[in-house]
Amino acid sequence: MDGFDLVIRGGTIATASDVFDADIGIRDGRIAALGENLAGAEEIDAGGKLVLPGGIDAHVHLDQPEKGDLAMADDFRSGTRAAAAGGTTTIMPFACQFRGQSLRQVVEDYHAKAEGKALIDYAFHLIIADANDRVMGQELPALIEDGYTSFKIYMTYPDLKLNDREVLEVFSLARRTGAMTMVHAESADAIEWMTEQLVLAGKTSPKFHADSRPPVVEREATHRAISLAELLDVPILIVHISSAEAIEQLARARQRGLRIYGETCPQYLFLTAEDLGIGDEFEGAKFVCSPPPRDRANQEVVWRALANGTFDVFSSDHAPYRFDGPDGKKANGVDTSFDKIPNGIPGVETRLPLLFSEGVNGGRISLQRFVALTATNPARIYGLHPRKGTIAVGSDADIAIWDPDREVTIMNDRLHHNVDYTPYEGIELRGYPTTVLSRGEVVVSEGEIVGEDGRGEFLKCAKPDPARPGVGVL
Amino acid sequence: MDGFDLVIRGGTIATASDVFDADIGIRDGRIAALGENLAGAEEIDAGGKLVLPGGIDAHVHLDQPEKGDLAMADDFRSGTRAAAAGGTTTIMPFACQFRGQSLRQVVEDYHAKAEGKALIDYAFHLIIADANDRVMGQELPALIEDGYTSFKIYMTYPDLKLNDREVLEVFSLARRTGAMTMVHAESADAIEWMTEQLVLAGKTSPKFHADSRPPVVEREATHRAISLAELLDVPILIVHISSAEAIEQLARARQRGLRIYGETCPQYLFLTAEDLGIGDEFEGAKFVCSPPPRDRANQEVVWRALANGTFDVFSSDHAPYRFDGPDGKKANGVDTSFDKIPNGIPGVETRLPLLFSEGVNGGRISLQRFVALTATNPARIYGLHPRKGTIAVGSDADIAIWDPDREVTIMNDRLHHNVDYTPYEGIELRGYPTTVLSRGEVVVSEGEIVGEDGRGEFLKCAKPDPARPGVGVL
Amino acid sequence: MDGFDLVIRGGTIATASDVFDADIGIRDGRIAALGENLAGAEEIDAGGKLVLPGGIDAHVHLDQPEKGDLAMADDFRSGTRAAAAGGTTTIMPFACQFRGQSLRQVVEDYHAKAEGKALIDYAFHLIIADANDRVMGQELPALIEDGYTSFKIYMTYPDLKLNDREVLEVFSLARRTGAMTMVHAESADAIEWMTEQLVLAGKTSPKFHADSRPPVVEREATHRAISLAELLDVPILIVHISSAEAIEQLARARQRGLRIYGETCPQYLFLTAEDLGIGDEFEGAKFVCSPPPRDRANQEVVWRALANGTFDVFSSDHAPYRFDGPDGKKANGVDTSFDKIPNGIPGVETRLPLLFSEGVNGGRISLQRFVALTATNPARIYGLHPRKGTIAVGSDADIAIWDPDREVTIMNDRLHHNVDYTPYEGIELRGYPTTVLSRGEVVVSEGEIVGEDGRGEFLKCAKPDPARPGVGVL
Amino acid sequence: MDGFDLVIRGGTIATASDVFDADIGIRDGRIAALGENLAGAEEIDAGGKLVLPGGIDAHVHLDQPEKGDLAMADDFRSGTRAAAAGGTTTIMPFACQFRGQSLRQVVEDYHAKAEGKALIDYAFHLIIADANDRVMGQELPALIEDGYTSFKIYMTYPDLKLNDREVLEVFSLARRTGAMTMVHAESADAIEWMTEQLVLAGKTSPKFHADSRPPVVEREATHRAISLAELLDVPILIVHISSAEAIEQLARARQRGLRIYGETCPQYLFLTAEDLGIGDEFEGAKFVCSPPPRDRANQEVVWRALANGTFDVFSSDHAPYRFDGPDGKKANGVDTSFDKIPNGIPGVETRLPLLFSEGVNGGRISLQRFVALTATNPARIYGLHPRKGTIAVGSDADIAIWDPDREVTIMNDRLHHNVDYTPYEGIELRGYPTTVLSRGEVVVSEGEIVGEDGRGEFLKCAKPDPARPGVGVL
Repeated sequence: MDGFDLVIRGGTIATASDVFDADIGIRDGRIAALGENLAGAEEIDAGGKLVLPGGIDAHVHLDQPEKGDLAMADDFRSGTRAAAAGGTTTIMPFACQFRGQSLRQVVEDYHAKAEGKALIDYAFHLIIADANDRVMGQELPALIEDGYTSFKIYMTYPDLKLNDREVLEVFSLARRTGAMTMVHAESADAIEWMTEQLVLAGKTSPKFHADSRPPVVEREATHRAISLAELLDVPILIVHISSAEAIEQLARARQRGLRIYGETCPQYLFLTAEDLGIGDEFEGAKFVCSPPPRDRANQEVVWRALANGTFDVFSSDHAPYRFDGPDGKKANGVDTSFDKIPNGIPGVETRLPLLFSEGVNGGRISLQRFVALTATNPARIYGLHPRKGTIAVGSDADIAIWDPDREVTIMNDRLHHNVDYTPYEGIELRGYPTTVLSRGEVVVSEGEIVGEDGRGEFLKCAKPDPARPGVGVL
Repeated sequence: MDGFDLVIRGGTIATASDVFDADIGIRDGRIAALGENLAGAEEIDAGGKLVLPGGIDAHVHLDQPEKGDLAMADDFRSGTRAAAAGGTTTIMPFACQFRGQSLRQVVEDYHAKAEGKALIDYAFHLIIADANDRVMGQELPALIEDGYTSFKIYMTYPDLKLNDREVLEVFSLARRTGAMTMVHAESADAIEWMTEQLVLAGKTSPKFHADSRPPVVEREATHRAISLAELLDVPILIVHISSAEAIEQLARARQRGLRIYGETCPQYLFLTAEDLGIGDEFEGAKFVCSPPPRDRANQEVVWRALANGTFDVFSSDHAPYRFDGPDGKKANGVDTSFDKIPNGIPGVETRLPLLFSEGVNGGRISLQRFVALTATNPARIYGLHPRKGTIAVGSDADIAIWDPDREVTIMNDRLHHNVDYTPYEGIELRGYPTTVLSRGEVVVSEGEIVGEDGRGEFLKCAKPDPARPGVGVL
Repeated sequence: MDGFDLVIRGGTIATASDVFDADIGIRDGRIAALGENLAGAEEIDAGGKLVLPGGIDAHVHLDQPEKGDLAMADDFRSGTRAAAAGGTTTIMPFACQFRGQSLRQVVEDYHAKAEGKALIDYAFHLIIADANDRVMGQELPALIEDGYTSFKIYMTYPDLKLNDREVLEVFSLARRTGAMTMVHAESADAIEWMTEQLVLAGKTSPKFHADSRPPVVEREATHRAISLAELLDVPILIVHISSAEAIEQLARARQRGLRIYGETCPQYLFLTAEDLGIGDEFEGAKFVCSPPPRDRANQEVVWRALANGTFDVFSSDHAPYRFDGPDGKKANGVDTSFDKIPNGIPGVETRLPLLFSEGVNGGRISLQRFVALTATNPARIYGLHPRKGTIAVGSDADIAIWDPDREVTIMNDRLHHNVDYTPYEGIELRGYPTTVLSRGEVVVSEGEIVGEDGRGEFLKCAKPDPARPGVGVL
Repeated sequence: MDGFDLVIRGGTIATASDVFDADIGIRDGRIAALGENLAGAEEIDAGGKLVLPGGIDAHVHLDQPEKGDLAMADDFRSGTRAAAAGGTTTIMPFACQFRGQSLRQVVEDYHAKAEGKALIDYAFHLIIADANDRVMGQELPALIEDGYTSFKIYMTYPDLKLNDREVLEVFSLARRTGAMTMVHAESADAIEWMTEQLVLAGKTSPKFHADSRPPVVEREATHRAISLAELLDVPILIVHISSAEAIEQLARARQRGLRIYGETCPQYLFLTAEDLGIGDEFEGAKFVCSPPPRDRANQEVVWRALANGTFDVFSSDHAPYRFDGPDGKKANGVDTSFDKIPNGIPGVETRLPLLFSEGVNGGRISLQRFVALTATNPARIYGLHPRKGTIAVGSDADIAIWDPDREVTIMNDRLHHNVDYTPYEGIELRGYPTTVLSRGEVVVSEGEIVGEDGRGEFLKCAKPDPARPGVGVL
C-alpha cells in the first residue's frame, strides 16, 4: 500500500471526534491511508503543526447578479483564492433566482460564472425567490435530483422574501424530496415598518441599521420558521443567527426533539452594533450586514452556543461589497439612508483564523468542535460527507495545515479578496493556516496562492441521509 | 508500511464523526494504519459489516464488597466476558470506599480482585464515602496523580451519602486537581421519608420502590448538584439520569454554559415502573434499580436527549445481583420491604445491542452518535482518549465488528454474566457484535469468547484536558 | 343616608379581592351604600346567597352581518336575554367592518341593530378588517375618542385577516391613542395550507377541523403578535387562548414584563377535539369553533392558567350559528367540508354557570378569582371600571344573586338564546344565578326574564388608564 | 343606618380590586358602611386623599431573644409605633424557638414581651428550630388550633436551620393541619463553605457578605424547598426573595400549578450589593441582611415580579440592629468578619412609603396591586382576612389615609423606630400616610403618634381556607 503521490508527515490530525498523530498518504487526490511512517513520492513535513480538514464555507456570496448598479467585488476567482488562503477548501455560494426567472437558467448562468475560475471545489445552494408552479413542480425537483439539494429562502427583503404560504410550499417540497432548506429569519414587515419610522425621523446614518432590525425581529421569524417546520415535521437550518433570543428559540426546538439546525458567523462573535456608529459617521457602513451585530452580552451567548452544541455550522456569509467606488457602500448609502447601503460584509478568508484564535487557542471550544463546526457538520448537513469535511480514508485530500502558534494581525492589504476593507482590520490572531491542499494538490503554500485558477470542480450534493436523524448534532 | 500483524478488511468504519470504508492495519496491538487494500499476516474479512470502536462501559459494578450477606454475582472474569460478548472492550468499575476505610487500601484490594481475571482492559473510578481529612488531603490527590482521575459520590444511600458540605469539598478538590466527579443525584432525606411512609402503610412490595423515589426527588438532587458545581465553577457528570425533569435541569445548565455532563442507561429506555409490578408480585424485584424506571413519556424524552446531544454518555450501571439464592433479591426482599431488595440490575452485555437495535436501526440516532455515546465521549471525559474510544492511528486496536442485520432475541441463557436473569428477556434485536478485538487480539469470535482470562490490563486515566472545554459535547 | 330605592339584604358579597357579608343600598340605579342593616323602599332577601357583580361578557357575537346566506341566530334581544339569564349584565359585541366599509358607518349600522332590543347594557368592540388610510388616520382615532376604545384584529380568515404590516399599524395607533387591541392569533397561511391538504385528501368531516389548526398554529401566531407588540411596547390582549403551547407564550411574555393580557373561554375547559368526531359523523359540527377544542391535557393547563393569574379574562366567544335550517351548520357544511361550517358556538348563557360549578364549587379557583375573571378584569381592561364590573359605592347596581348550591342540568330547551342546540347539553352544574339586576332593576327573577327589551343602554368605554400598568394582572 | 362613631369623608378608597370614591362609616371599631354622604359623631375629611387598608407587615422581628450579647433595638412599643407611622396597622412578628425550648413556653414568653406595649394589633408567626417529637406531635398542633397558624423555618443559620428531613416533617404537619409554612431559602452548607473560604483569604469586610451568599445559593434552596413541597403537595411561602434566579424558580412552580407563594422586601428594590462596600469600609454593615441586596438588573426583575403577580406579599423583614453601641453591628463585626455582623436591617416604617412612591407614583404598579401586596394578600394567606387587610363592611377599621403627593425625604431622625440609622437615608419620596386608624381609633394624626401604647391586641389567625386554592394569586 505504499506508492503514495504525496505524504503529509508528522502532523497532529484532528477530526470532529479525535486528535491523533499520523501521516496521511494521498493518492489520486484522495486520502488513501492514515498511518505511521508512510512514504510517498512527495512529502510535506507537518511536524509541530495541526492537520485539519479544509474548511467548508457553506454560506458565501460570489458574483451574484444584483439589481441596479450594485456589483459584488469577488467572483469565483478572487473569492476562492481568499477562501483557500484562509484554510477553506470548499465553498457553497448561491445561485440566486429573482422573481420571474427560470431556476434552471439561473443555475446554468451561475455555472458559466464559475467556469474556469475557481481555485477550490464548490457546490451551489439555490435561492428560491419565486415559488411558482413551474419552479416548485418541475425545476426544483429536477435540480435536487441533479445534485442541488439545498436552497435558501428569505423571510425578509422585498425582492426575495417568501410569504408563509410559500415557505410552507418550500418546506413541503423539501420534506418530499429530502432536500435541506436554509432560512434567513428576520421579519419583513417589522423591519420595513421600523425602517420607515427611522427614515421619517431623519435617522438615516448607518448606526440606525441595528435599530431597524432588533433581536425581537429575528426571534419572531426564527420562531415562525421553526413552527412551520414543526407543522410539517421537516428539518431546516436557520442561517446566521445573531442573538440570544433567537438562540433560545433554536435550543428550545432542539429540546423538543425537532431537527432544527443553526448557523452563526464571525460577525456575531467579533463585531457589535457599536461598530455601526464609529469614527467618521459613515465608517459604520463597513459593518452593515443582516442581522446586524449585537452587543457583548449577545456575543457571549453565541460563543456559548458554539461550545455547547446548539450551533452546528459556522460560516462566513461573505458578501463582498466595497466601501468606496461607484458600486460601494458609500456611493449608495452616504446621501440616502442606511437601508440603501449594500448589505453584507466580507469574511471568507478571515472566518477560520478568527474562530481558531479566539475559540481554540482562547480555550472556548475544543479542536474537535472547531472541525465539526467548520467542516464536518456542513458536509454532513449538505450532502458532501464523507467526500468532504473530514480526514478519513477515501475522502478528498482537502487539508489545511495550521501553525497553531503563528501570530498574525489582520490587515486588508494582505487578504486575497477583492474588497477594499475588512471589518476585522487590526485584530491580532494566534494560529493560521500555512499550507492548504485541494484534492491532494497544494494550492496555498506558506500563505502564498500556488494553485491554478479554474482547477476547482463543481460538486453535486447528495441528500442528507433521512435514516440519520441527529446529523449535525453529532 | 506493510507488515501488519492483522488487517481488518473491507468493513465500514464508524467514528464519532465519520463513516467510511477502509481496512485497518494492526501492529503490536495498536492501530497502525487505516487505508485501502492493506495486507497483514492475518486478516479478518469485515465485508458487509460495521467496524466500530469497542464500547467503553463507564459505569459498571463488579465484585464490590457489600455489607452483610450480599454479594455481587459477577467478578472481573464473568463481568469482562459478558462485556466483551456485548461489544465492550473497556470497563470502568468502582473501587468503593466505605466509611472509615483507607481509600488507598480500597484501591489495592480492588486491584487484587481484578488480578488475573479480566478479559479486557479496565480502569477504576473511585467511590468516596468518607471525605475525611486524610482522604481529601492526602490519599485522593495522590491517587489522582496515579491515574485514578474520576470518582463517584452519592447524594443518597445511608452508608454512602455525602452531605452538601462534603459534596463541596469533593468538588473543590476536583477543581484543584482537574479530576472528574460523578454524581448519583437523588435526595436522601426525601427518599427515606417516603420509604418510611410507604412501609408504615404496608406498601412493601417491589412496585412501591418507584413511589419511594419519584422524579421530583431526582430533579431536586440534580439541581442541587448543578448549583454546587456552578458555585465552584467545576465540571461534573450526573450519572444514570432517568427522567424528563432531571434532563430539563441538565439541558438548562448546558444552555447557561455550564460544563455539566450527563449519562443515561438502557433501563431508562427499555423498562418502565410498571415492570416493577408485573406477574407474581415479587417478579418486579428484577427491575429494582435506582433511579427506578419511569414511564413511556419519560422514555421518549430520554431518547430525544440521546439524539440531540443533551446526554454525553450511555452506560449500563451493571449491578449484578441474583434473583434467587441466599444473596438474591428474593431472599432479601420478599418478606421484608422493597427497600431491602438488592438495588441494581445487570446489563453490561446487553447495553450496546439494545441501543444499536432500537437507536441506530430504529432510526433514532446516527451511527456516529452511537459511537460517541458508547465509546468516544466516555474516553474523552475520563481521560482514556485517544488510546481508547475511537478508531484512529495510534489507538489501541479495541474494535467490535457488528453485523448490523443479525437478529437476536435476548435470552439469559445465552448471556455470559453470572446473574440468573436479565431484565430484557425476550426483547428482539436487530444488529449484534460478532467479532471483538482487544488490543488487536480477537477475544470474541462469532459470539464465542476466545480470549484468555487475565489478559486485560489496568488503565491509568489522564485528567480530562482542561484546555478543552466542551469535551463530551462534541 | 337611608331612603334607598332597593336594598339587597343578608347576602355574602364577593369582589375580586374580598368576600364579606353586607347589605347593598341602591339608589337611582347605582350602588349608594354597602352596610349593615340597610333599609329601602324595596328589599330582596339574599340570605344564604352569593351577591356577585353581574358578569361582563367581553367577547360576544350578535347579529353581525355575514357574507352570503349565513345569519346569526341571536340579535340584541335574544342575546342579551340569554346573557342576563346566565348572570351577565354587560356584553361587548363586535361592530365588524368588512373590507371597503366605512368604520363609522359600520358602527352606526350596528347601533341601529341594537336599538330598542337590549335587556342589559352593552359596549362595542370594533373589528378592523380594512386598515386603510381613512380608517386609520381619521375614523378610528375619532371613534376611540367617542368611546369605542377597543378593537379586535384577526391574523386568520381570508376576509378579515390583517398582514403583519397592518397589525403593526393597528398596534401603533393603539399605542398613540391608549386603546386596547384584541388579537385572534392563529396563522392564516398555515391553516389554509393544512385545510387544502385535508380537503384534497378527502378529509372533510368536522373532526378534521381540529387537524387543520393544531396548537402549533396558535402558538406561532401568539408569539408573532406578542413580538410585534413587544417591538412597539404596547399592551394587547390575546383572545380565546386554547392550548398549553399558547399559554406558555403568554406566561413567558408576562415574565419578561410585557403587558400582554389573555382570555380563554368555556369551550377550552369543557370540550375536546374528540367532540368534533362524535356520534352521527356530522354532529361534531356542533363543536366547530376556532381555535378548536383541544384535549384533556390542554384543558388542565387552561384551568391552571385561570387559577394562577396567567389569564385575565374569561369570555364566551358566543357565536350563535344554528345546527339545522338553511343558514345552519348542517346546510352549509354537510355536503362540502369542515371549513365551510359556520365557525363558532353559542355560550353566552352558560359561561358563568359552567365556570362557577367546576371552578369555584370544584375547588379550582377562589370566588374572588371568579369575579376578577368574569367581571372586574374585563371592566378594567376595556375602560368600564368602576362603573361596571364590581360591587362598590358609585358603581352601577349590576348584580347577580347566585344560589351556590342550586343543581341545574344544562338543556337547550331551557336556555334563552335563539340557537337550536348547546354544546354543553346534559352537563350537570351546581350553582346558578337566580336573580339579576341591571342598574338596580331586576331583569331576571328566579330564572325568569322580567325586564323589558330595549332598556339596555350603550356604554362608552374610557381608555384603560396608561398610568396603571399591571391592570388586569391584579 | 346612621349614627356612626366616625366617618371618613370624601376620600378615594382603594381595595385590591377597586378604586372608588365613598365615605366610610365606622362603628365599634369596625367598618359599618361604605356609602355616599355618611354622617357620624366625628368626621375626618379625606378629600383629595387616598384611603387605603392599613398595611400588614407580615415579616417583622421585634424584641426577639438573641444569643450572646446581641439585642434588638425595637420592642413592641417602638416597633408598632414605627409601623403605624408608616401606614401599617397589623404586624406579624416571630415567636422564635431555639433548640431545646418548649414552643408553648416560647409563645408565652413572647406574649409577655408584647403585653401592654403595642400600639396596633399583632399576630405571631412561630419559628420552628427544634422539630422534635414533642414539638411536632403535641405543641405545634395545639398552637395551630389556638390561632398560631403560620411558622417559619430556616434552611440556613447554624442555630436555626432544619435539615431536609425536618423540613419534610414540618411540611407534612402543615399539610395535615392546614397551616402555612414560611421558608427562608438559602443553602446552609454552601454559605458556610463560602464564608470560610473568604475569611481564610482575609476577605472579612462587609462587602464580602454578598459574595458569601450569591444568587445561586438562594436559587438552590428555593428549588429544594419547592421540590419538597411538591413532593407533599402542600402550599408554602418563600420569604424575602431577592434575585432573578429565585424568582424564576417561583414563577416556574406557579406555572406548573403549585401553590408556592412568594414575598419580597424593600431592600431588594432600593439597595444593591455595592452599598455593602460604600464609604468608610465598615459603613456597608448598615446594609448587611440575608439574602443580601443584589444588583440593578436583579432589582428590575423584582419590580417586574411585583407587577406581574409573581410575588404575593411585600414585607419589611424589619430586623432592628443598631450600628453603634455595644450590641451594634460595629461592635460585633468591625474587628472580626462580615459573618459576625448582626444580620438584618430596619424597615418597618419605610416599607410602604418606599413602595408607594416608586411603585404607584412611579407608574410601576397599580394602586390595587399595592393594596394586594401590602395588605389583602398577607391577610388572606395568613388567615386574618376579612377582619384585616381590606376596606369592607365588617372589617376592622384599620385604615391609612395617604396624601399621594406629599414629598418626604427619609431621615432617620424623623423615624419612630429605635435603631440609630436607616438604610434608606436621604431617599426622596412622593406620597406618605398622614392619618392612620386602628380599629376606628386614630393612632397617627398628621404624622404624629397619638394612640396609646398597649392598645394593640393580639390576633388569632384562622387557617388559610383549603377550599380556596389560588389564594394570594388573586
